[in-house]
Amino acid sequence: MPQGKPSVVPDDGLTTRQRRNRSLLVVHTGDGKGKSTAAFGLALRGWNQGFSIGVFQFVKSAKWRIGEQSVLERLGSLHEQTGEGGSVEWHKMGAGWSWSRKAGSEHDHAAAAAEGWQEIRQRLAEQTHDMYILDEFTYPINWGWIDVDDVVETLTRRLGRQHVIITGRRAHPDLVHAADLVTEMTKVAHPMDAGQKGQRGIEW
Amino acid sequence: MPQGKPSVVPDDGLTTRQRRNRSLLVVHTGDGKGKSTAAFGLALRGWNQGFSIGVFQFVKSAKWRIGEQSVLERLGSLHEQTGEGGSVEWHKMGAGWSWSRKAGSEHDHAAAAAEGWQEIRQRLAEQTHDMYILDEFTYPINWGWIDVDDVVETLTRRLGRQHVIITGRRAHPDLVHAADLVTEMTKVAHPMDAGQKGQRGIEW
Repeated sequence: MPQGKPSVVPDDGLTTRQRRNRSLLVVHTGDGKGKSTAAFGLALRGWNQGFSIGVFQFVKSAKWRIGEQSVLERLGSLHEQTGEGGSVEWHKMGAGWSWSRKAGSEHDHAAAAAEGWQEIRQRLAEQTHDMYILDEFTYPINWGWIDVDDVVETLTRRLGRQHVIITGRRAHPDLVHAADLVTEMTKVAHPMDAGQKGQRGIEW
Repeated sequence: MPQGKPSVVPDDGLTTRQRRNRSLLVVHTGDGKGKSTAAFGLALRGWNQGFSIGVFQFVKSAKWRIGEQSVLERLGSLHEQTGEGGSVEWHKMGAGWSWSRKAGSEHDHAAAAAEGWQEIRQRLAEQTHDMYILDEFTYPINWGWIDVDDVVETLTRRLGRQHVIITGRRAHPDLVHAADLVTEMTKVAHPMDAGQKGQRGIEW
């Protein structure tokens, strides 16, 4: 692969180094596979660079991406034991946000999603993490549970080095517009079409 | 996310369990980001399931996906130390395949690519790995260095549980046709367009 060469040099008063280290807002959308998988692949790189990683999963599911959670939490514990890589926090909405005192909040998905976003807002203000993965975050936005204007404004104004990766189908156009990098994953062929269900090591 | 529900139940004489555990040929193609990143995300899941993972990188690059290699090799050494997860082997063509005795073969990319494919063919016959990642494998096929008919026939006839994940732009139509799962990653927006170069933790 050739080295990336910018096609335009912007007149924004920043040095190449400043631009290079600017925080990115990344969106993985589309109906295909790989949106979350590629986000967790980015977490691998971030961990290797010593990033503090915060994962926030917004949709309750029977398949909680157990594989990724297990490995990333193992990497987080390696960090605690040996100082290698970065720290990892993994929070799941449906199981009740682990930092939340409202034990029953998982019964009201809209309230739980809004509460999750408030926590992320707070962490962004405090520059808690270097990399935030907001997995399936497009859904509570599209369902009106979280205000897209607030999301865009908060993300646009965030300070420091805080990369944010958002996954989910049908990303809101304002979110796409605000993002630095948007990839659409499109399904070309899928074993579901031939009657195959998901399997371990591939789907979870 | 809803549970996957097959839209068709095929009349192939297999039980659901047999179909569920069928080896998959996965292709990540398109001009967007995330092809390799999602492949290494799958490797996370595979490792967690105890899979033997073999990674084969087919294009010499200044950015050797150092982050992913470093973390996956660390997970491989964890496996050796503690028995957790699966084994990981990582082979790079441009650096001279580590299993190859021809020290100078990296100077002839076509020969090195063909040699890499022969090694993979051999490993598939011996069922060496549970998951093979053939990173940027579409390029040596498109450049005529590796015969696509041989690839399709070998992959179609492989035995046992051997998942194969191929990445790269412009996947050959015969490869797409043979695959169980093809995702096209399309660029919607990219910071390169605004004059930003790659940065650590995101691009490598």
